Amino acid sequence: MKKVVTFGEVLMRIAPLGNKKLKQSNQLEYYFGGTEANVAISLAQFGNKTQHITAVSNDFVGDAAKSYLQKLGVDTGLIIDSRHPLGLYFLEVGAVMRSSTIAYNRSNSAFCKIDPNKINWEKALENCDWFHWTGITPALSLNAFKALKQGLEIANKKGITISADPAYRSGLWNYSHEAKDVLNELVALSNVFIGGPNEINELLDTNFSFDNDDFIKASKLLMEKYSNIKGVFDKTRVSLNASWHKIKARMWNGKEFSETNELEITHVVDRIGTGDAYAAGLIQGLLHYDDVKALQFANASCALKHTIEGDANLVTEDDVLGIIEGNISGRIKR
Amino acid sequence: MKKVVTFGEVLMRIAPLGNKKLKQSNQLEYYFGGTEANVAISLAQFGNKTQHITAVSNDFVGDAAKSYLQKLGVDTGLIIDSRHPLGLYFLEVGAVMRSSTIAYNRSNSAFCKIDPNKINWEKALENCDWFHWTGITPALSLNAFKALKQGLEIANKKGITISADPAYRSGLWNYSHEAKDVLNELVALSNVFIGGPNEINELLDTNFSFDNDDFIKASKLLMEKYSNIKGVFDKTRVSLNASWHKIKARMWNGKEFSETNELEITHVVDRIGTGDAYAAGLIQGLLHYDDVKALQFANASCALKHTIEGDANLVTEDDVLGIIEGNISGRIKR
Amino acid sequence: MKKVVTFGEVLMRIAPLGNKKLKQSNQLEYYFGGTEANVAISLAQFGNKTQHITAVSNDFVGDAAKSYLQKLGVDTGLIIDSRHPLGLYFLEVGAVMRSSTIAYNRSNSAFCKIDPNKINWEKALENCDWFHWTGITPALSLNAFKALKQGLEIANKKGITISADPAYRSGLWNYSHEAKDVLNELVALSNVFIGGPNEINELLDTNFSFDNDDFIKASKLLMEKYSNIKGVFDKTRVSLNASWHKIKARMWNGKEFSETNELEITHVVDRIGTGDAYAAGLIQGLLHYDDVKALQFANASCALKHTIEGDANLVTEDDVLGIIEGNISGRIKR
Amino acid sequence: MKKVVTFGEVLMRIAPLGNKKLKQSNQLEYYFGGTEANVAISLAQFGNKTQHITAVSNDFVGDAAKSYLQKLGVDTGLIIDSRHPLGLYFLEVGAVMRSSTIAYNRSNSAFCKIDPNKINWEKALENCDWFHWTGITPALSLNAFKALKQGLEIANKKGITISADPAYRSGLWNYSHEAKDVLNELVALSNVFIGGPNEINELLDTNFSFDNDDFIKASKLLMEKYSNIKGVFDKTRVSLNASWHKIKARMWNGKEFSETNELEITHVVDRIGTGDAYAAGLIQGLLHYDDVKALQFANASCALKHTIEGDANLVTEDDVLGIIEGNISGRIKR
Amino acid sequence: MKKVVTFGEVLMRIAPLGNKKLKQSNQLEYYFGGTEANVAISLAQFGNKTQHITAVSNDFVGDAAKSYLQKLGVDTGLIIDSRHPLGLYFLEVGAVMRSSTIAYNRSNSAFCKIDPNKINWEKALENCDWFHWTGITPALSLNAFKALKQGLEIANKKGITISADPAYRSGLWNYSHEAKDVLNELVALSNVFIGGPNEINELLDTNFSFDNDDFIKASKLLMEKYSNIKGVFDKTRVSLNASWHKIKARMWNGKEFSETNELEITHVVDRIGTGDAYAAGLIQGLLHYDDVKALQFANASCALKHTIEGDANLVTEDDVLGIIEGNISGRIKR
Amino acid sequence: MKKVVTFGEVLMRIAPLGNKKLKQSNQLEYYFGGTEANVAISLAQFGNKTQHITAVSNDFVGDAAKSYLQKLGVDTGLIIDSRHPLGLYFLEVGAVMRSSTIAYNRSNSAFCKIDPNKINWEKALENCDWFHWTGITPALSLNAFKALKQGLEIANKKGITISADPAYRSGLWNYSHEAKDVLNELVALSNVFIGGPNEINELLDTNFSFDNDDFIKASKLLMEKYSNIKGVFDKTRVSLNASWHKIKARMWNGKEFSETNELEITHVVDRIGTGDAYAAGLIQGLLHYDDVKALQFANASCALKHTIEGDANLVTEDDVLGIIEGNISGRIKR
Repeated sequence: MKKVVTFGEVLMRIAPLGNKKLKQSNQLEYYFGGTEANVAISLAQFGNKTQHITAVSNDFVGDAAKSYLQKLGVDTGLIIDSRHPLGLYFLEVGAVMRSSTIAYNRSNSAFCKIDPNKINWEKALENCDWFHWTGITPALSLNAFKALKQGLEIANKKGITISADPAYRSGLWNYSHEAKDVLNELVALSNVFIGGPNEINELLDTNFSFDNDDFIKASKLLMEKYSNIKGVFDKTRVSLNASWHKIKARMWNGKEFSETNELEITHVVDRIGTGDAYAAGLIQGLLHYDDVKALQFANASCALKHTIEGDANLVTEDDVLGIIEGNISGRIKR
Repeated sequence: MKKVVTFGEVLMRIAPLGNKKLKQSNQLEYYFGGTEANVAISLAQFGNKTQHITAVSNDFVGDAAKSYLQKLGVDTGLIIDSRHPLGLYFLEVGAVMRSSTIAYNRSNSAFCKIDPNKINWEKALENCDWFHWTGITPALSLNAFKALKQGLEIANKKGITISADPAYRSGLWNYSHEAKDVLNELVALSNVFIGGPNEINELLDTNFSFDNDDFIKASKLLMEKYSNIKGVFDKTRVSLNASWHKIKARMWNGKEFSETNELEITHVVDRIGTGDAYAAGLIQGLLHYDDVKALQFANASCALKHTIEGDANLVTEDDVLGIIEGNISGRIKR
Repeated sequence: MKKVVTFGEVLMRIAPLGNKKLKQSNQLEYYFGGTEANVAISLAQFGNKTQHITAVSNDFVGDAAKSYLQKLGVDTGLIIDSRHPLGLYFLEVGAVMRSSTIAYNRSNSAFCKIDPNKINWEKALENCDWFHWTGITPALSLNAFKALKQGLEIANKKGITISADPAYRSGLWNYSHEAKDVLNELVALSNVFIGGPNEINELLDTNFSFDNDDFIKASKLLMEKYSNIKGVFDKTRVSLNASWHKIKARMWNGKEFSETNELEITHVVDRIGTGDAYAAGLIQGLLHYDDVKALQFANASCALKHTIEGDANLVTEDDVLGIIEGNISGRIKR
Repeated sequence: MKKVVTFGEVLMRIAPLGNKKLKQSNQLEYYFGGTEANVAISLAQFGNKTQHITAVSNDFVGDAAKSYLQKLGVDTGLIIDSRHPLGLYFLEVGAVMRSSTIAYNRSNSAFCKIDPNKINWEKALENCDWFHWTGITPALSLNAFKALKQGLEIANKKGITISADPAYRSGLWNYSHEAKDVLNELVALSNVFIGGPNEINELLDTNFSFDNDDFIKASKLLMEKYSNIKGVFDKTRVSLNASWHKIKARMWNGKEFSETNELEITHVVDRIGTGDAYAAGLIQGLLHYDDVKALQFANASCALKHTIEGDANLVTEDDVLGIIEGNISGRIKR
Repeated sequence: MKKVVTFGEVLMRIAPLGNKKLKQSNQLEYYFGGTEANVAISLAQFGNKTQHITAVSNDFVGDAAKSYLQKLGVDTGLIIDSRHPLGLYFLEVGAVMRSSTIAYNRSNSAFCKIDPNKINWEKALENCDWFHWTGITPALSLNAFKALKQGLEIANKKGITISADPAYRSGLWNYSHEAKDVLNELVALSNVFIGGPNEINELLDTNFSFDNDDFIKASKLLMEKYSNIKGVFDKTRVSLNASWHKIKARMWNGKEFSETNELEITHVVDRIGTGDAYAAGLIQGLLHYDDVKALQFANASCALKHTIEGDANLVTEDDVLGIIEGNISGRIKR
Repeated sequence: MKKVVTFGEVLMRIAPLGNKKLKQSNQLEYYFGGTEANVAISLAQFGNKTQHITAVSNDFVGDAAKSYLQKLGVDTGLIIDSRHPLGLYFLEVGAVMRSSTIAYNRSNSAFCKIDPNKINWEKALENCDWFHWTGITPALSLNAFKALKQGLEIANKKGITISADPAYRSGLWNYSHEAKDVLNELVALSNVFIGGPNEINELLDTNFSFDNDDFIKASKLLMEKYSNIKGVFDKTRVSLNASWHKIKARMWNGKEFSETNELEITHVVDRIGTGDAYAAGLIQGLLHYDDVKALQFANASCALKHTIEGDANLVTEDDVLGIIEGNISGRIKR
C-alpha cells in the first residue's frame, strides 16, 4: 500500500439540479472538491493510503468537508481548522453549446489565509511515497505558495516523488508574485510534469505548437532545464460541444514517446475534475505499473470521470483496467 | 433600452421529473410559459424593457404566474385578474423515438375568457418599440382574437413595429371564425412575418415546397399581398429524434436572401419554447442589428434554448453573440 | 381481450438518482420489476388482461409490490404472502463506458422459498391465452423450478400457448440441478422460443455463430428436437457504449426468415427490462398480428423501453405501432 | 367480502412541498383524491371490494388517475373517458394559525360534464352491499346531479344500503337548482345520514344548536321526515390551530345515543380527507360491527387520517382497531 | 400606494432539508434574505411599492438575488453590481432543544465592500414615504455605515419617516468604530424605534429591566434624549424550545402604553426573519392604521412568519388582518 | 483520547420521505445504522477514537456502509467483506397515534453469517478503553453469538471496561440457544449494565416493578449475582404519542441512587436510535465524568437524538453539555 500526500484548497461545489440556472429553482446539491483533494480521493479509491493537507472553516461546513474526505478514504488528521470560511463555488451546468459557468467565492477562504507554520509537514510526509501539487495553490495567496514550497522542500529531502500539474489560471493570480517565477521555482523541485506545450510555453517563454513533434521538443527542453523531471505527461481533448468529448494522452519520458488510443465520451455526465482524474490515474500508474501503462491508466481514468457526478473520480482500479482492456461497451455488471 | 410588448396566454407547465410518465411518480416540477410570454421573458433577459398583457386567475396560482414573470424581468402591471383558472398543461418528456406528450387544460382559462375592454392598450403601448403576437392567441377564443385585434390597431396607429408568428395549430381552433380569415386579417396589420412556405400556404392557399427557391417565391407573394410586411424569417429543423436536432434559419427581406449555418443540438435538454426563442432572438436582432445578423441571432438563440430547462430562454445577449462567433465547444466559463 | 399469465419473482429495484454512486447521496428511488412481471405489465399496458403469479413478503414492502402491479393493470389476486422478505437489487446507473452495476439481495427471498403447493394454477390459467416464463425462475431455487414446471404442465393440458425466454444467467444457478437439464425440460413444454444461437448453443451443446445463416440452422435444429416449438425469435444488439445502442430482431418460424430494420437509441434512458419489452411486444404481436409484424412489434417495443424509466415498458400499442410506421423523429404530441 | 360503490369526481391535488407557497419553489407533489373516491380507497384498504364511478380525461392525466385508484384497490372498470380535462386543485399547506389554501380548477371538468346515460349503473350495483354519496356531487353540475339520482334510484330498487354525506359547500352550487331542494330529494333516497345539527339545519330550515341534546332532537326530526334514515352519525372537531386538533363522534340511531372518547391530534400531518376517512370508517363499521363500534371505528379512522399524507386514508382495519383498543402511544412496530 | 426604501445586505441562505445536518445529505435548498430585504419583501407583499438598495456580485448568484427580489415585488433598479461575492450563510435547522446553527460567509461580501458614492440616494428616496434600517448594516463595515448615514441624512432632509431596528449583534462589529457611538449617531436621525429595554440599555448605558414599567421608563428616557423618536415598539418572546414559541408586542408612543394579546406558535416552521416580519408589519400598520392597530399588525405579522419557509414573510394584508380579528384556528380556505 | 470498540450488525435503513407509506411515492432516503454502530458513531462525534467490527457485503452496498462509518469518524479497517448481502430494514414513519413500522430483511445477512475466526480481536482491542455490546447481536445467529463471546473474553483479559445493553427482542431469537442463557453468559462478562427492572426480570426470572425502589432492589440483586457489574443505568420514557415523548434516566452504582430531570421532546424528529444515543452518552460520561454526570449526559444525549434524522446521534460533546446546563430553549447559534 502506497501513501500519497496532497496539499491544496478544498472547495464546496454548490449547483442547481440538472441543467437549471440558479434562479430557476431553490433546490441545490453540493459536493466537495478542489483539484488536489480530488487527486487524493481518487487515489484512495484506487486503494492507496492518502492524506490531504489543507485548512477548513471551524464550523459545520468545515466539519462536513472533512467528513466528506474521510468518507472517501482520505486521512484528515492534519487538516487545520480556521476562523475563515471554506472556499466555495457555484456551478450552472451547461449542455451542448452552452458552457457550464462557475462563480467563485474563495478569495478570503480558510485556505488562502492558511498559516504555513501550522502545517505538520514532517508528520504528513512520514513514510510517504508521492506528493502531488498543482498550479492552483501558489496562485491563491502568498501564504499558500509559502506553505507549498516548504512541503516540496521537505518532500525533496525525504526523496519522495513529486508530481506537478502547473495548470496556469490567470484569473487566480492577484498577489505580488509573478506566476511564471513562482511556477518555475516549484517545478524545479518536482519529478513528474503533468502538462504539454501550453504549460511549457508559459514556463519557458517558448512557442511550441500542439503537435506531437513539438510536444517532444518542448518536453526535452523542459527536462534539460530541470534535470529532476523524469517525464512529461500530457492529455489532449477535442470538445465537439459541452456534452461530447474525445480524449487522448501522450508522454515523453526521456527515452520514449507514447500516445494512447482515443476514448470518446458521447454523453458527458460531469466535466469537472477530469483533469484531476487524469493526474490521479497517472500517479496510480506510475506507482504500480510502467510509464506506458501509467499513461493508459491516466487516460482511462480521465475518461471514466466524465461519467461520475461530483468533482472526484469514484472508480476503482478494476474499473480503469477494464477500460484499458477495451471493455467500453458499458454492459451491465451483475 | 427598447420596450417590447407581448399579449397572450400564460400557461403553467406541470411535468414529472426526467423522462418519467405521470403515473410513475408523485413528484412534479412546474414552469410558467406561453408562447408570447416566453418571448417577453427572453427579451427581458437580453436587456429590454418588456411588458406582457394577459389575464390570470385571482388566486395563488395567478399570483405565482405574475411573480414568475417579474422574476425574469417582465412588467406585470397591466395583467388582469380573473375568477377563471389559469390555463395549464401537463407534459411527459420523451426521448429518442419517444415523443413528448402534452395534455392541455386551457379551454376555459382566464385568458380564453379575457374581457377585451379591460385591457389598457394605450398605457401598454406607450413608448413601445415592438409588439409581438402569435397565431395561438386568436385560436383560443373570440375574446382573445378581439383583444388582439384592438391591440394591433392601436400599435399600428402608434407606428410600433409588429411581428407575427402565425403558427397555425388546428387543434386549438374551435369557435365560430375560420382560422385562415382571422390570421389574414391580423397579418395584414403586421410588419415582420415569422414563418415560411408552410405558414404562407395556409394563409394564401398556395402550395409552395420547402426549398429555398419556393421560400423566396412564397415570401415575395406574401409581401406583395401585404405591403406592410418588410421581411419573412423562417427556421428549418431536422429532428433525428426527440433528443438530437439540427437547425438553420433563412430570410427574405425584399432585397436579400440569407441563410445561417446549421447548429447541431446533439443532446436536447428541453424542446419546448425553442420557436419562441427564435422569435425573441429575431426581435432582439432586428431592434439592435441588421437583418442578416438578426437572423443569425435568432438561430443561435433558438439553439441555446434547447439547452435550457423550462419554456423560456434564459440566456443573455453575450451568450448568443458567443454562439454567432462560433464558440460552440461549450468550454467551462470561470 | 386476451389473457396472459406470467410467473416469476417480483424484485424491488433501489437506485441512487441519475448516475450517482450509492455512497454519493442518501436519496434513492425505487421501482418494482422482475423479468416476468415486466412482461405482464407491458402486456397490460397494451390492453390485455394479465395475471402475475409470485410470492411476496407479508409486510408493507410486499403490499407496495402488489399495489405497483395493480396500478399498472396486473391482477394480483393469486399472489402468495410469505414471511420471507421480498427480493431486491440495488442499481448504480452507468453511462458511456461506465457499466451499470447491480447488487442483488434475493437468494432467500419470498419467491425463492415459494411453496409450489400454494399456487392455484387451475384458477390462474382459466380462460388464459398465453403463458410466459424465463430462465431466471428455474435458476433461483428448486421450489421455483417445481412450481414453474407444474404451471407449464397444466398450461399445456389447457392448450395455452407458452413462450420461453430461457436466458441463461450462470451467476444465479446454485442448487443441485444442472441448468441445461432443467432448461431443456422446460423448453420441451413450450411453443415460442425467445433467443438465438447463444441460447440454443447452451441448450443443445452446439456451436452456432451469430450470423443469420447460423441463426436459421440453429433454429431448425431446435425445432426438430422440440416439435412443439413453432418459432424462434431473436434480438441482436450493438452497444457503442452504455448510452448508445442499436437493435434489430430476426426470426425463423419454420417457413420464413425475417429481420427488422435497425433502430438506433442514441440516448439510452434506462437499459433494464429492454429484453422483457421485446418479449412482451412479441407476445402482443403474436396474439394480434402475423409473425413478421409481431417481430417488428417486438423490436419497436424493445426500442421504446430504452426511453422509459423503471423496469417495465409503459408504452401503449399505438406508441409501438407509430414506431413501426416509421415515426421516429420524436415530434411533440399535443 | 363486501362490495361498496361510490360515485363522484376524482380530483388531482397539486401542492408545493412542506409549507411552501406555490411561488417559492418549482417542485410539486400530487395525489389523487375527491371525497367519494377517498371513501372507496379507504374501504379497499380495509379489505372490501370497491368500485368507483366517475369520468376522467382521456389523456395521460386521466390514465394516471385510474392507475392511482387501481393501485389502492379500487375497481376502475366502469370509469368513463372524456375529452374534458380532469378536475384539479392546488393546495398551499398552512400551519398553526396560517390556513391551508385551495385553488380549484374543476368547473369544466370531465366529471362536471359527465353524460348520465353513459354510466352502467346496473353492472356497477350488481352484488353491491353499500352505496355512498356526498353533497359535493350534486353541487357540481346538473349532469352530475342527474347521474347521482339515477344511481340512487337503482340502488334503492336493489335494496342496497345508501349513506349520505350531504356536506353543503355554498361556493360550489352555481347552476339552476337550489341546493336545499336537491339535497332533500337525495337524502330521501338514503339510509345513513352523516352529519349533525349544521347539516340538518340546512336541509330542514331549522335552528338546532351544536349540543348533544339538540343533536338528538335534530336527528329525531330528520328521521321522522325521512323514515328510511336509520341513523345519524356526526363528528365534532376542536381546532386549536391548523396543526393541533381534537375530534369526537356521536350518533343517534333511533334508539340509542352514543359518543366516543376524544382523540387528540397534536401534530397534524394532513388535514384533507379526514371527513372522508370518518365516512369510510363508519361504513366499514356498519358493514362489520354494531352501531356503537362503528362510531368508534369512524372516529379512530378519522384520527389516523390526520397522520397520513394525501387525500385518502391508507390504514388497515387492524390499525383502526388498535386505536379503538387504546394503543395510541405510537410505539414502533417491528 | 406607499413607497418604502430599505438598505442592507442581501444574504443567500443555504440549508440542508428538514432537520438534517449538512454532512448528512448533499441536497440543499436556498432562499435569499437579509434583515432589511426581508422587510422590503414583506411590505411589497402587503401591497406597497418598495425599493431595496444594496450591492450584489456581478455573477449569476447576484443575478439570482435580484431576480428573487423582483419576483416578490421589490424594485431592484438601483442595486449595485460588484466584483465581490454575495454574502451567504449556511443553516442547520434545529428542533425542540436543539438550536439551529448558522455559519456565515459574509465578511468580504459585495455589500461589506459597497462604495457609498455609487448609491443614487436622490433617486431612491424620490417620492418615498418610509425608510428602514437595522443595526446589522453599520456593524458590517465602515463603508456600509457611511452609506447608511448618507441615506439617513438625505431621507431626513426629504422628511421621510425613518424606522430604526438597532439590534446589536456583537459578533459582527469588527472594524474601528464603537457600536454604541455609531448606533446613537444613527438613532439620532430616526423616528420610530424598534426595540425595548435591552436595546435601550445598550445605547444609553442604562440598566432597565424587562418589565412593562421599565419598558415605559426606558422609552421615555430615549425619547427625551432623541426628540425625533415618536414611538418605541418592542416585541417579547417566550421560547419553550426551538419548536414552540409565544410572542407578544408592546409600545410607548409618548402618550399611551399598549400591549397585544399573546400569540402561540405551537409548531414553528421557520424561526428566521420573524423579527423582520414584526418590523414590516409595524411599518405597514403605521403607514395605514393607528399606533395600537399597528402594534397588533406587527405582532400578527410576526406570528405568521413562523409558519412561512424562507427568510421573508410572504403573507398578505388580509392574512394579517384575519389573525388580528382572532381567526387563528387555521381552517382551510377554499 | 479514549478508544471504544463496538461489534454488531450494520443495517441500512430505507424509508419513504416524511410520513409517507412506501406505496405512496417512489422516492426514498437511506441511512446506515445498527444499534452498536450507532454507539460507535456517536462516540466518534464526541471526540473518541472508535472502531466498529462487523461484516458487510462485498459489493457497492457494503462499500457505502463502510464509507458512511468513515465519514462519521469510525475506523472500518477491521470490517470483514462477505458474499452475503448487507442487512437492511424498511421504515414507514408514523406520527401522533400512528406507529412507525419496520420491515426487516436481515435474517441471511453478511453479519448473521459472520465467521468468528475471521475477526482480528487482538488488533481491535489493542489500546482499547471500552467495549460495548447489545442483546441484538447474540439474538441474530449462533455465529454472531460466538464471535461476540470471543470478543468479550479477550476484552476481559485485557481489562477493558465492557458495557452491556441486553435489550431482549423476542422476534429476533430463532436459533437453537435460549435467549436467557445466552444473555446471562454474556452479562457475566460485563461491567456496566444498561437496563432496568424489565431487563433484569428477563435475565433473573424475577418480577420487579418499574418504580424506583424496585429498580434499586433489582439492581442490587443483579450486582450480587454478577459482582463484575459496577453500575446499573436505566432510562424511562413516557410516550404521549409517536410525536411527543418525555424521558428521564436513573442509576444505581452500588452506593448511590440518582435520577435526572425529565426532558420533554414536544416534536419528535426521529425516534430510532435514541436508546443507542443514551448508551453512547453514558459511555462518554463514564469515560470522562463521574457517575451522576454520566447519567445526565446519557439522558441529554438521548433527548437530543430525537431531533436528529437518521439512526445515529450526530451531536457534539458541547451540544450535550449545553442541555445539561439547562439551555433547552433552542435559541439560534450564530
